[in-house]
Amino acid sequence: ASPWVEWLLGSRLSTARGHTAPSDTTLACHFPHPRLKRSRLKVRFCTNESQKSRGELVALLRRLGFDISQEEVTAPAPATCQVLEERGLRPHLLVHDGVRSEFDQIDQSNPNCVVLADAGESFSYQNMNKAFQTLMELENPVLISLGKGRYYKETSGLMLDVGAYMKALEYACGIEAEVVGKPSPEFFKSALQAMGVEAHQAIMIGDDIVGDVGGAQRCGMRALQVRTGKFRPSDEYHPEVKADGYVDNLAEAVDLLLQHADK
Amino acid sequence: ASPWVEWLLGSRLSTARGHTAPSDTTLACHFPHPRLKRSRLKVRFCTNESQKSRGELVALLRRLGFDISQEEVTAPAPATCQVLEERGLRPHLLVHDGVRSEFDQIDQSNPNCVVLADAGESFSYQNMNKAFQTLMELENPVLISLGKGRYYKETSGLMLDVGAYMKALEYACGIEAEVVGKPSPEFFKSALQAMGVEAHQAIMIGDDIVGDVGGAQRCGMRALQVRTGKFRPSDEYHPEVKADGYVDNLAEAVDLLLQHADK
Repeated sequence: ASPWVEWLLGSRLSTARGHTAPSDTTLACHFPHPRLKRSRLKVRFCTNESQKSRGELVALLRRLGFDISQEEVTAPAPATCQVLEERGLRPHLLVHDGVRSEFDQIDQSNPNCVVLADAGESFSYQNMNKAFQTLMELENPVLISLGKGRYYKETSGLMLDVGAYMKALEYACGIEAEVVGKPSPEFFKSALQAMGVEAHQAIMIGDDIVGDVGGAQRCGMRALQVRTGKFRPSDEYHPEVKADGYVDNLAEAVDLLLQHADK
Repeated sequence: ASPWVEWLLGSRLSTARGHTAPSDTTLACHFPHPRLKRSRLKVRFCTNESQKSRGELVALLRRLGFDISQEEVTAPAPATCQVLEERGLRPHLLVHDGVRSEFDQIDQSNPNCVVLADAGESFSYQNMNKAFQTLMELENPVLISLGKGRYYKETSGLMLDVGAYMKALEYACGIEAEVVGKPSPEFFKSALQAMGVEAHQAIMIGDDIVGDVGGAQRCGMRALQVRTGKFRPSDEYHPEVKADGYVDNLAEAVDLLLQHADK
């Protein structure tokens, strides 16, 4: 799901609402917009991408012109590893091969939970049954899902995302999954913590009205929706979520932020 | 899902509750229990089996010793064909190859709905995406699911059933599927109609406390649960469904019915 339009701009900045910007923010990474490079904004990528390792994701972003490092990415796989370690969970992985290396340091013997990510072609009947059977053999089945997106857009068309398969396993097992990723509040909070800013000092920019905009707002952030990616015109009349602003693209969002940050 | 323990015994018979049996019932098919063959009971197989055509199903049952014909089977595929014809629906099929022939007479060009059955290995990521994309291209997406079972038991272990994949598509598309099969009241009623008996004259025997027992009871039938197949001891303390009786196996159910039918 186009990671390059889903990023978290955290800063002690003024915003479209006209707050003044304190002076202790720094620019944490470089973007294709030269003016942003010279600003004092801290920037962080906050993505539900669960097919790729952070290394692969950063390499992709760099090819697209984003000068960003692995340390500036908040992604579900490393966040999940932290959960697994904290709770002594040993996962059976139903994930894409691209992200498997993120779990290299985790004990996967004798599984006591299932970790589900956007597995793509690996969502075979056989692999789904194996995950299902693993859960049904556990006394207290734990299912951790890296995001709960419904679908995303590829050049070849709309593709089912991990949320659909999470629902399948939830229904078959009669359980509820734990979601790591947007819009989970814990996930946004870990991104804010990594940047060292408070929610009210941060702005989320994203294309998903519920996962990006609604999720960030529930954590106390403001949020802009870009009219690109999975944006649909009906999003501006969403029954539950109202963005703090809409911009036609990322460049317009950057213009808007810098107008106020530079004051 | 062991079809040989999910059958509908419809009859104008006396029951465990002691009603008298009128004399105008006839034995519609032959079972391995010789005494049942001589009774006046009408019998019908009422199954959610959606991997096999009725022809294949009857052939399997005959090999297992059940003397039954295609006309004595109520199954989701033919019931679905009736729905499709009545409403002018042209399906995109996500079904097992075994059941595809049941849809031979149905126009499948330019689909305006998706029909989902227990597709087994055909539940690939590619096939699921194709069904999903078909639904998303429709102005009024219609998803028909042949049953909504969570899972079933094979010799190789528990297997995900069509209901899990139905939930995946429901979630991804934001729609609700129409279910053809147990426990849908329409499905039980079509079985009763085919036998020409009223609900209060019929007894359902099945191994699924919700799909068989609960579904039949909601239609006004009585229902026995057999302690075989997918039966679990906790079923006898189910929070919502209480069977009219429990039997250790099909033979005991037949004994019980005949005791009262023969009076």
